[in-house]
Amino acid sequence: MAELKELPLREELRGSSAYGAPQLTVTNQLNTNENPYPPSEALVKDIVAAVEKHARELNRYPERDAVELRTALAGYVSEQTGVNVSVDNVWAANGSNEVLQQLLQAFGGPGRSALGFTPSYSMHPILCAGTQTEFISCPRNEDFRIAEKEALEAVAKHRPDVVFITTPNNPTGDVTPIDLVEKIVQAAPGIVIVDEAYMEFSPSPSATTLLAKYPTKLVVSRTMSKAFDFAGGRLGYFVADPAFVEAVMLVRLPYHLSVLSQIAATVALAHKEETLGTVAKLSAERDRVVARLQELGYYVVPSESNFVSFGRFADQHAVWQGFLDRDVLIRDNGVPGLLRATIGLPEENDAFLSAAEDLADTVEMIN
Amino acid sequence: MAELKELPLREELRGSSAYGAPQLTVTNQLNTNENPYPPSEALVKDIVAAVEKHARELNRYPERDAVELRTALAGYVSEQTGVNVSVDNVWAANGSNEVLQQLLQAFGGPGRSALGFTPSYSMHPILCAGTQTEFISCPRNEDFRIAEKEALEAVAKHRPDVVFITTPNNPTGDVTPIDLVEKIVQAAPGIVIVDEAYMEFSPSPSATTLLAKYPTKLVVSRTMSKAFDFAGGRLGYFVADPAFVEAVMLVRLPYHLSVLSQIAATVALAHKEETLGTVAKLSAERDRVVARLQELGYYVVPSESNFVSFGRFADQHAVWQGFLDRDVLIRDNGVPGLLRATIGLPEENDAFLSAAEDLADTVEMIN
Repeated sequence: MAELKELPLREELRGSSAYGAPQLTVTNQLNTNENPYPPSEALVKDIVAAVEKHARELNRYPERDAVELRTALAGYVSEQTGVNVSVDNVWAANGSNEVLQQLLQAFGGPGRSALGFTPSYSMHPILCAGTQTEFISCPRNEDFRIAEKEALEAVAKHRPDVVFITTPNNPTGDVTPIDLVEKIVQAAPGIVIVDEAYMEFSPSPSATTLLAKYPTKLVVSRTMSKAFDFAGGRLGYFVADPAFVEAVMLVRLPYHLSVLSQIAATVALAHKEETLGTVAKLSAERDRVVARLQELGYYVVPSESNFVSFGRFADQHAVWQGFLDRDVLIRDNGVPGLLRATIGLPEENDAFLSAAEDLADTVEMIN
Repeated sequence: MAELKELPLREELRGSSAYGAPQLTVTNQLNTNENPYPPSEALVKDIVAAVEKHARELNRYPERDAVELRTALAGYVSEQTGVNVSVDNVWAANGSNEVLQQLLQAFGGPGRSALGFTPSYSMHPILCAGTQTEFISCPRNEDFRIAEKEALEAVAKHRPDVVFITTPNNPTGDVTPIDLVEKIVQAAPGIVIVDEAYMEFSPSPSATTLLAKYPTKLVVSRTMSKAFDFAGGRLGYFVADPAFVEAVMLVRLPYHLSVLSQIAATVALAHKEETLGTVAKLSAERDRVVARLQELGYYVVPSESNFVSFGRFADQHAVWQGFLDRDVLIRDNGVPGLLRATIGLPEENDAFLSAAEDLADTVEMIN
């Protein structure tokens, strides 16, 4: 048996470690921003029926361009955002990570750069590294909002080929106002990817409303993992001008989306009404959790997503362990002073708040 | 609406076109090397049952390291090749394309090169382009076998970081003798990826028999698309020293394999006996097709796979159209003078041979 260091690995990968939240088994799993409501029985029944119908074709390659699924996604996006889009505007892949990777292969890559407003989704710099795109970090304000002046200055100075705006932001939960998104799009010399993984949890307008105005610059990426209750199905997508779909078709792996992924996601979209019903429940729970955390003396970043970022702790990792000791798994994203908790079922949120109450008097707060 | 040329696409992608065989609807589809036998009713039933059991967990992320599936793959490989491997030796992804892409991200990339013996699997240079790895082509002999002397010279001269050996080769179907594989592994300064996508159709020994001897150099990639009747399920894998698994974990996208992919592939492996029964039938049909093509005066490359490469034609694309006009879709892989036909069901092979008979007197042969 060999050791990793004996392999001719690329130099920049040496000493790095694999991405990923610990997959621990804990009663209250509030660490990966999943939707805690299981798929409805009606949805399960329809997925099973669709699999039964199509399993006999598993010896054949899938339809390469996933037209039926992309048509269903376009219908959903049109309804959810009020912006009328068609199959030609939508691209789908195995999770938004693959969507973003394809965009970076086409528009980033060696000799090119991408700028993000940090702290933000930790996969953005990792996807940049994987595609040899230089990642430039523009720090957010103390309150974790994008600092307008500094943001526009950073775009002007670095002239990045790609700009990431995550809104609602992960791991902090706050929304970037649409007029600031537009200012950044106007200033950007290349493309802007607005990562709206959590947008269904926010009443704020989607950046899809800007697509018609900036067809060569703007891409809005989304996922079925969160609001859509489909993290296990791995289905991410983007909405943009059809030219962006043409572009990623040049770099996507042929037959990247399996028959099962395509049919299960298409069926899940047909059940959007019942699934999105959970979004309202989770948003109400989020507001309850935020209010109680504030009552307990915690600092909470204003959230329009299905999680809350709270603190501030002198040693957030020790507090993370304190929650784990109380059978509540939350997430330490490495943001100094902050921890992130996913909104779960009411009883899970109760367990989280009870642990938070327990810990409130003992942990050392800063600011 | 924008045009693709208005987007800030990477320069090297400008003017390129998307990969992929035409997806036409033709009675006899013999163009993508699929296994023509649909999954058995028993397998369909078990996939449906597994989906029914796990669909209720689709709101949760999949198990990130696909341990159960990789364990099942290891069991299968051990049995099929006679080389005892465990879960730690096996890595799985969405098709062998993704497996190969991950290997190139870890061991190829900018400033590095990969060498292949062409004509071979056309995705190898495309995957190199997508990962910014320089692709070096070492032409095969006139009879499409790897030329030993030229191969070893090319490895010595170019010092490639990655060498691809496709055996049985696609699109030609022939096997590279294991002793030549070993000589190339010995000569290679970096890693060697032996692409065994079609190995179940060959009685020749698998390169997995060399793994223990070359733990830091050798990777054997495989797929469930062909022998395993699972092209629609998109499941590729590699077998290598555990250090290679550690290496790709540094570049894989987290949660790259959906819950549905993992469970369907695991169930399919449990039905290996009935599925692999189709391999013997297809191999016998292949021998029948080869014999008849030779009788009709065609040149046929010796095949140990589920397809045959035949010719030689002055204008292979005109002959491809001749087959299509007779309702038989085969593949023009762009190899001058050759066409590739997948072995289908007996009646599909009859239709192919009948078209071949029709065309034999009218097409212009060379050599």
